[in-house]
Amino acid sequence: MGYTVGIDIGGTKVLGGVVDETGALIKRARRDTPAEGGVALTQAIADVALELMKDSEIESVGVSVAAFISADRKTILATPNIKDWNGVNLDYELTSRIGLPVVIENDANSAAWGEFKFGAGRGKENILMLTVGTGIGGGIVVNSNLLRGSFGIAAEIGHLRIVPNGLLCGCGAYGCFEQYGSGTALLRHAREAIQAHPDRASNILNRGDGSIEGVKGSAITAAAGDGDELALSIFEITGDYIGAGIASLAVILDPEAVVIGGGVIDAGDILLNPIRTGMEKYMPFAGKHPHPQIIGAQLGNEAGLVGVADLARI
Amino acid sequence: MGYTVGIDIGGTKVLGGVVDETGALIKRARRDTPAEGGVALTQAIADVALELMKDSEIESVGVSVAAFISADRKTILATPNIKDWNGVNLDYELTSRIGLPVVIENDANSAAWGEFKFGAGRGKENILMLTVGTGIGGGIVVNSNLLRGSFGIAAEIGHLRIVPNGLLCGCGAYGCFEQYGSGTALLRHAREAIQAHPDRASNILNRGDGSIEGVKGSAITAAAGDGDELALSIFEITGDYIGAGIASLAVILDPEAVVIGGGVIDAGDILLNPIRTGMEKYMPFAGKHPHPQIIGAQLGNEAGLVGVADLARI
Amino acid sequence: MGYTVGIDIGGTKVLGGVVDETGALIKRARRDTPAEGGVALTQAIADVALELMKDSEIESVGVSVAAFISADRKTILATPNIKDWNGVNLDYELTSRIGLPVVIENDANSAAWGEFKFGAGRGKENILMLTVGTGIGGGIVVNSNLLRGSFGIAAEIGHLRIVPNGLLCGCGAYGCFEQYGSGTALLRHAREAIQAHPDRASNILNRGDGSIEGVKGSAITAAAGDGDELALSIFEITGDYIGAGIASLAVILDPEAVVIGGGVIDAGDILLNPIRTGMEKYMPFAGKHPHPQIIGAQLGNEAGLVGVADLARI
Amino acid sequence: MGYTVGIDIGGTKVLGGVVDETGALIKRARRDTPAEGGVALTQAIADVALELMKDSEIESVGVSVAAFISADRKTILATPNIKDWNGVNLDYELTSRIGLPVVIENDANSAAWGEFKFGAGRGKENILMLTVGTGIGGGIVVNSNLLRGSFGIAAEIGHLRIVPNGLLCGCGAYGCFEQYGSGTALLRHAREAIQAHPDRASNILNRGDGSIEGVKGSAITAAAGDGDELALSIFEITGDYIGAGIASLAVILDPEAVVIGGGVIDAGDILLNPIRTGMEKYMPFAGKHPHPQIIGAQLGNEAGLVGVADLARI
Repeated sequence: MGYTVGIDIGGTKVLGGVVDETGALIKRARRDTPAEGGVALTQAIADVALELMKDSEIESVGVSVAAFISADRKTILATPNIKDWNGVNLDYELTSRIGLPVVIENDANSAAWGEFKFGAGRGKENILMLTVGTGIGGGIVVNSNLLRGSFGIAAEIGHLRIVPNGLLCGCGAYGCFEQYGSGTALLRHAREAIQAHPDRASNILNRGDGSIEGVKGSAITAAAGDGDELALSIFEITGDYIGAGIASLAVILDPEAVVIGGGVIDAGDILLNPIRTGMEKYMPFAGKHPHPQIIGAQLGNEAGLVGVADLARI
Repeated sequence: MGYTVGIDIGGTKVLGGVVDETGALIKRARRDTPAEGGVALTQAIADVALELMKDSEIESVGVSVAAFISADRKTILATPNIKDWNGVNLDYELTSRIGLPVVIENDANSAAWGEFKFGAGRGKENILMLTVGTGIGGGIVVNSNLLRGSFGIAAEIGHLRIVPNGLLCGCGAYGCFEQYGSGTALLRHAREAIQAHPDRASNILNRGDGSIEGVKGSAITAAAGDGDELALSIFEITGDYIGAGIASLAVILDPEAVVIGGGVIDAGDILLNPIRTGMEKYMPFAGKHPHPQIIGAQLGNEAGLVGVADLARI
Repeated sequence: MGYTVGIDIGGTKVLGGVVDETGALIKRARRDTPAEGGVALTQAIADVALELMKDSEIESVGVSVAAFISADRKTILATPNIKDWNGVNLDYELTSRIGLPVVIENDANSAAWGEFKFGAGRGKENILMLTVGTGIGGGIVVNSNLLRGSFGIAAEIGHLRIVPNGLLCGCGAYGCFEQYGSGTALLRHAREAIQAHPDRASNILNRGDGSIEGVKGSAITAAAGDGDELALSIFEITGDYIGAGIASLAVILDPEAVVIGGGVIDAGDILLNPIRTGMEKYMPFAGKHPHPQIIGAQLGNEAGLVGVADLARI
Repeated sequence: MGYTVGIDIGGTKVLGGVVDETGALIKRARRDTPAEGGVALTQAIADVALELMKDSEIESVGVSVAAFISADRKTILATPNIKDWNGVNLDYELTSRIGLPVVIENDANSAAWGEFKFGAGRGKENILMLTVGTGIGGGIVVNSNLLRGSFGIAAEIGHLRIVPNGLLCGCGAYGCFEQYGSGTALLRHAREAIQAHPDRASNILNRGDGSIEGVKGSAITAAAGDGDELALSIFEITGDYIGAGIASLAVILDPEAVVIGGGVIDAGDILLNPIRTGMEKYMPFAGKHPHPQIIGAQLGNEAGLVGVADLARI
């Protein structure tokens, strides 16, 4: 009925917002993310919540964070990038500071929920969302419920093995999806393409400092937008991998739509079309059943904040 | 409260049973599966149901079949082995013949539901079941509900791609899980092992007609049970592939348990142990979260019949 | 000094020719290949030789055949397509019929030698030749000598494993080069591309009977020659695999040039350019050493005949 | 007739020896390898040669070094580990200092030649040698000649691609043989096995400092020698990869024997047996032709020194 607060913990900012039940972001507040993590970070989150609670009546607070969350959604099991937070019962720590019910959710799950309720997945019941950035985050909605799993690792689709004995992943396994289909992988594919064809790379290199190391995703996207062949071929390589991964995920989950978000989605159909082509190429029983739609996310960076605010609604 | 009927359509028999709400099979009936499929098969199913309805009060009837079923669970979208059944609205055809509500479900889904309710998965909320036979069938239970998907292809886990550009699968794609982890694959691994080491194969070959082509799964299982090294190594190869597939599925679905059924489960820990070893070897973030238990199915061939009878319960 | 005869045993024709020391083909003779193989085939070869010996003074006779040849170049160890020839001492059988010294050589080796002496490899000392047809045949020249190996299987490069656990090959192994880079593979890649994009396939399909099964290599080549995008993409897929295989072969053999022959070479740079791109992409230590040139064969179907005639020269 | 000197440039020592025509090492001399490389290293080599030349009449000097050598065997094209040596005409630099003819050869080639002439390959004409250490070095003897190639990269078999899109290699390519079959890979396989089965690792861990990071190859070999199952399984994993690579190399080169050298060969049949099993498993046309023997090297660390001394003989 009323308002909830969503808070998204990023690498540099803790960003909070008051969200109504239509997903509209009424008001924002932010703090810098304390580099020391731990209690300082917990307090920063509480401060953002308390600031937003001053002028509005808030029912509850949702917190979105890149971490494994316990199945009861209270405790941070493990987080790769935040110091002194593993094992923290964040539900207790925040509730005792702000006096409101708290819900904690993984960031990719939060974003998937945001898109499901208010964005590209609105009106559907079964969606899969990929957040394609440094890695590949995943969120799965089944029968209009978030798929959480037994131990807090469901929807870690970036770690589907797509290449046996392939590249070593930060998770300790080999050949994970995110080693081939993430934004990081797109940059690697770009460097390799430029090294192989330096004579065709000027359109990309001229948009940066001229060095291969200095190439940014935005330069590749811009060059591809101009029809540059090398840039387009880079999106085709990455898109083919993403499409292959989605084909495998589709036979397991059979979603109505696959929503692609994260920084790379700025490229729009330049990325989405190779993903569609790849998915069709690798889909089992092709032609015998409908395929999921591949669509771009609509809520941008605020999907997680809006999503977790809604998950906090009782 | 009362009884329902479950009917399982096999390659040679249409097997039906009256099932109570505890999953107990009260009474059985059967017909040969008509080779011509089509109306003859529909009528055989109706006959089995009508026979079972004579002496007991039946609420509804469930039918388990190896097919893609429409999302509304009424129509056979496609079935690889039955003639003249594609597109048949089986719900209408049966209801009009027997006068009871009918529920149709994919056979691997039915078996998964049977094990979830009355077998190895009892008391859990999230399980994954693999039926390892000619292929690999899959069934997924999420939050105590069967995962059906949008278009009737969810849980087709036998078609997860585990080897890029790998073996051609009957589904038209390459490198599918069931090409490496099914009972058929186990027999192929056996033939290859025997060809490579004919000097060590007598323990297996002597249990059949002596030829490589004549080797049966039961001979490999029996030899492995005697501690035969070649036979054990065959289970290790197949089990490693199954474990690798389960590791990928676990990061997506995060089940509490993975139930292994199908004919190969006669081998028990001879197969389950290599699967456990493989899963642990390939699991992302190993050591940072609990792993699903790998357990053998308990209901044998009747899992599908019992499962679909329960799904038919209103 | 004088003339020799080269005889090439094909699936339908036994084709012979008188060849001088410059590789010029002076005169031809032919017989149908007897379907029964065995003695009838041996006699047909002798007949071709005897016909050519009537008018010219011939020093010796070379015979090129798709088979494993013993290291002493006398005996057919194994041949996949000819009946009743395995184990035949062809040197003895022919010498006793025609009274001249005989040299027997594998067909791909003969073609490689022909191109090395008189064709695309002239003037070089180290070349690798790929004959890309139904499979991939290979011939290797090292320091101006044919690489024969210890047991008659050297240069069977079509069976380099390029995909672990990949497609089953006729040789019994999995993932062999010729499953991905042969003319047969190109047709498979074509069928897959057409199925995935029927809307873009008219330019290819209209050149045949309109069916996917009826698509021929010549249609794909012709469409690609017109700039058809789908046809070009098919050559890119196959060429990428061939280039990857060549990169592996190059680090072993370090040839000055790689000569590509076989039916697919009608496509010229349409095929050679993706091969060059692929080789560069996959080459170890790229940029730290020169790469072999990738060049088209020059002698067409007669490379084997001319090559084996030269190998027969004393 | 007389004596030559062989000099092997290692990471810590420049080791020289006077070698007679039977391969016997008559006398030794050594210097520390100057960390600054460049002229200091050239001078150290000259000093070793001059010391050995004092008491014996020496015909010529061979130098073995881990580097790409130009096809004329004079210039260091590239060396990964030595400073200020790329592009040095070592033939000129040394000849001018010592007044004798000099031959420079790649270290793995030198070792292969040593084993071919005086060690495990004696009496054969076609061998392949793998030096399995930090990486995988290769040397190939064809018709009793070293296979050098056109550009100085022949026999770089450690960079055969055995896993598409596999682990990144120091050479810049992905999935190279040495990432899966080297001594370094064996240590990685060991760490992974220990992490997966800490309860079975005591026999290995107790032979070192108890930590996974501290595990050495010698501990794994010793544990395997005691029949420890985990240690044996580690050799099986690495041996399977090596065997797969050898199967691919054998269809190209068809050697009579494959000699395995390098540090890991201390394990003897513990390593050689899984290699043999792997090679047979992956060999194309298995059963239709003889396989190469897999044998251990015999000359140990001095194979390169003795080999290059022989190559220097005129």
